[in-house]
Amino acid sequence: MRIAIIAPAWFAVPPLRYGGIEWVVAILADGLVDQGHDVTLFAAGDSQTKAHLVTSYDEPPSMRIGLSLPDLHHALTCYSQAGEFDIINDHSGPLGAALGGAVTVPVCHTVHGPLTGEPGDVYSLLGQVSPRVGLISISDSQRAPLPDLNWLATCHNAISLDAYPFHPANDDYLLFLGRMSPDKGAHHAVNVARETGRPLILAGKMHDVAEREHFEQHVGPYLSDTIQYVGEVSHDEKVRLLQSALVTLFPIQWPEPFGLVMVESMACGTPVVATRNGAVPEVIEDGKSGVIVDDFAELAAAVERAAELSPQACRDSAVEWFSPARMVADYVAAYERLLQLSV
Amino acid sequence: MRIAIIAPAWFAVPPLRYGGIEWVVAILADGLVDQGHDVTLFAAGDSQTKAHLVTSYDEPPSMRIGLSLPDLHHALTCYSQAGEFDIINDHSGPLGAALGGAVTVPVCHTVHGPLTGEPGDVYSLLGQVSPRVGLISISDSQRAPLPDLNWLATCHNAISLDAYPFHPANDDYLLFLGRMSPDKGAHHAVNVARETGRPLILAGKMHDVAEREHFEQHVGPYLSDTIQYVGEVSHDEKVRLLQSALVTLFPIQWPEPFGLVMVESMACGTPVVATRNGAVPEVIEDGKSGVIVDDFAELAAAVERAAELSPQACRDSAVEWFSPARMVADYVAAYERLLQLSV
Repeated sequence: MRIAIIAPAWFAVPPLRYGGIEWVVAILADGLVDQGHDVTLFAAGDSQTKAHLVTSYDEPPSMRIGLSLPDLHHALTCYSQAGEFDIINDHSGPLGAALGGAVTVPVCHTVHGPLTGEPGDVYSLLGQVSPRVGLISISDSQRAPLPDLNWLATCHNAISLDAYPFHPANDDYLLFLGRMSPDKGAHHAVNVARETGRPLILAGKMHDVAEREHFEQHVGPYLSDTIQYVGEVSHDEKVRLLQSALVTLFPIQWPEPFGLVMVESMACGTPVVATRNGAVPEVIEDGKSGVIVDDFAELAAAVERAAELSPQACRDSAVEWFSPARMVADYVAAYERLLQLSV
Repeated sequence: MRIAIIAPAWFAVPPLRYGGIEWVVAILADGLVDQGHDVTLFAAGDSQTKAHLVTSYDEPPSMRIGLSLPDLHHALTCYSQAGEFDIINDHSGPLGAALGGAVTVPVCHTVHGPLTGEPGDVYSLLGQVSPRVGLISISDSQRAPLPDLNWLATCHNAISLDAYPFHPANDDYLLFLGRMSPDKGAHHAVNVARETGRPLILAGKMHDVAEREHFEQHVGPYLSDTIQYVGEVSHDEKVRLLQSALVTLFPIQWPEPFGLVMVESMACGTPVVATRNGAVPEVIEDGKSGVIVDDFAELAAAVERAAELSPQACRDSAVEWFSPARMVADYVAAYERLLQLSV
């Protein structure tokens, strides 16, 4: 297949720093090439890929993130060459999805964010304007607010398993990896540490006002010799923290469409304790790669159960469900289905 | 005709403060209603119009100006109802133009900005993706960088003539009305004042760095009892300044696609002295409503010739060429042409 993939306009693929979408796009493009497809990746100029790279910007327009003009410029760079492809898979955002209605080549769009609030309104409208564009969800749960859109497939995200090496031996600390915003639940991680008496390491960014306020009120006052906040960490530090943790806590408070950190933890051999919300039940095999609870009050007890799980089983679950090969196969199946529907 | 007009998403129509595009859209929508058309205006909630008003935002999302998500939300609000209209005329920007390719209803888009730089690249690409969308220029000159786009018509802008009352009596001062950016040529106005010995009033905003630097280097040092900068002015102050000026100077240094201040001056009965650039020769009747020069060195001599022109002739020229009735008729003709082409 001649496949065009549109990355988000703003950052290199793969990203130089954090960027979940950019990693998924990087893995997908390389994986499709490995399978023998003719892949063109539309992405910022600093990108590294096995695909043909077409850039609308030599330097990623990161300083203009979210603005219409570069977003449009980037998506149109692909759509203006639409005739050269059998299929286009947009990952750039709702603007890229809506524009898919302007070309005759089959277009599918991967929804990477939640479908609530204003993005939900926009996807609902673009479903009316560009109804032929097939939508790919990154979890079944993500579809809940808008189940009647033109859903084509669910393709769960993958991670580069080599970048998260298996490490069966553990220290005794709990790990929380995520932003300090209330919906990520760092304060629940603190509660679990105090209840279990186990050490806790919190890592993640604290930039915006909501993150700072949440941290100052609900995390900062409890920091101690055993409850430590280490700020944002590099990839290598993240892997080291994940590899040696007893369990990773994922006390998510909102229906997050995916949650890559759960998979990263499993790949390193560390079970995850999570609240049943969003994509959690689609990512964790309860009792194998982690423990899922229905109430925050159950987290502490779940830690002890999760600590008994086999690191190898966690790794196996990550390899089985979240490998690049599985994700690429899901995407190829979705593309083939769209081509059949478009005949 | 059942006509949909999409205003820019960001400000009320008409604008509460300055906003050239919003004024043109307001005049067009009301004028089409006055002619008996069934007009729906998609604009921010604070808008006042004779048309049916459909809002995507109760409050204009001015703080998010330029961002993809509100821009898309706004345009899709119209395009999702496309089937209810005979024709859609987008004024919202290149995103609105590109999306016109996704619907089957005939769409035309008025280009309000210059076609150089990144906007030029974007219009060039969207001409390939959405080739059926008819483009309306606001001057013939505006088309110069991209003459081969799908041009439908030129519809010169209009002003609300009642808002710029004729006032034949003059004081002896020269007037410069515009931003302090180099391309507007305030420094040339200063030169003309010094050369002719006539008083000069400069009015206009000085916000961004380029405007401040230009002012500090090329305008500020020459301020005196007779060369005065009065900052940004209200509509009423602007009219008073225009009505009593001997001539208005328009020493434009770049190919501006239009230039409403020339028309505003003519409507008040004040001739314009301008450099031949952009739309200037399409707006000023040389020797009737003003004097056009080919070189900045000729400006001073031209002031004396322009001062002899008849205020009534200036007003007549504005009424003949830039009335709402003329603009609305031009748009109706463009819409009819597009409908014929779309049969």
